[in-house]
Amino acid sequence: MIWFEDMPVGRIDRYGRIEVTRDDVLDFARKYDPQPFHLDDAAAAANPLFGRLAASGWQTAGFGMRMTADYWNAIGGRSIIAGAGIDELRWLKPVYPGDTLRCESEIIEARVSASKPDRGIVRNTLTVFNQHDEPVMTQIGNIIVQRRPDAA
Amino acid sequence: MIWFEDMPVGRIDRYGRIEVTRDDVLDFARKYDPQPFHLDDAAAAANPLFGRLAASGWQTAGFGMRMTADYWNAIGGRSIIAGAGIDELRWLKPVYPGDTLRCESEIIEARVSASKPDRGIVRNTLTVFNQHDEPVMTQIGNIIVQRRPDAA
Repeated sequence: MIWFEDMPVGRIDRYGRIEVTRDDVLDFARKYDPQPFHLDDAAAAANPLFGRLAASGWQTAGFGMRMTADYWNAIGGRSIIAGAGIDELRWLKPVYPGDTLRCESEIIEARVSASKPDRGIVRNTLTVFNQHDEPVMTQIGNIIVQRRPDAA
Repeated sequence: MIWFEDMPVGRIDRYGRIEVTRDDVLDFARKYDPQPFHLDDAAAAANPLFGRLAASGWQTAGFGMRMTADYWNAIGGRSIIAGAGIDELRWLKPVYPGDTLRCESEIIEARVSASKPDRGIVRNTLTVFNQHDEPVMTQIGNIIVQRRPDAA
């Protein structure tokens, strides 16, 4: 298990590989983001930023979460209690069917909770890259993590 | 069509109704957020913030996007080009199967692009409420919107 004490400032993790399919993009858009440029080739072609069918930015965030959860599950599980929020999420480039995504994360802040000393708050950057090593999304996450039981 | 000029600071929109089902929660968690407390009743019961199976915060954001897209599609379509990013996203309360969600949005900033005068940047708050009128999520969105053709 990965505890608060295992997440110091400066820790960097690189992980994940998701290939984005056209079916993924259409399925997500129908359920969560039915804007024309995420559903329809002609509408996407007319969009000055996309040019062709592009994934919802919320799906890119979801892919980042999926790669993150898979990574932590694989290395023993994180003692995470919950996500508190996200700051400065930016969609920098479109994500297209056929793209392959990966993640880099760095911990930029870690502090013990003043009111609940059995847990801490960790802030980390997350960057999602495409197969051209271009960042397509950045964000800062704020998560609530349990301290190692013998540390509190 | 709703243009940049139709989105002045202070505009408030209230819309949406989504009932969250257990199948929705499990389906999203399997695809995008496979952390134990979003997938498994016992793990969720052991979580000090959730207490029982709770939706991924990213799914709540997706439900907010779905209600927003449906609303704008129904009143004529928004001249949106793309979302640029999200600030200060906060998950304030868990969302549980059986909850019913709705949205309130207020435009807090609207400015014409300096480099591309055919478009503007609109910032808006979005609050997602549950059936008890409790805010479960807040965020500030930044969207790129076309100006009315005769305005530019």
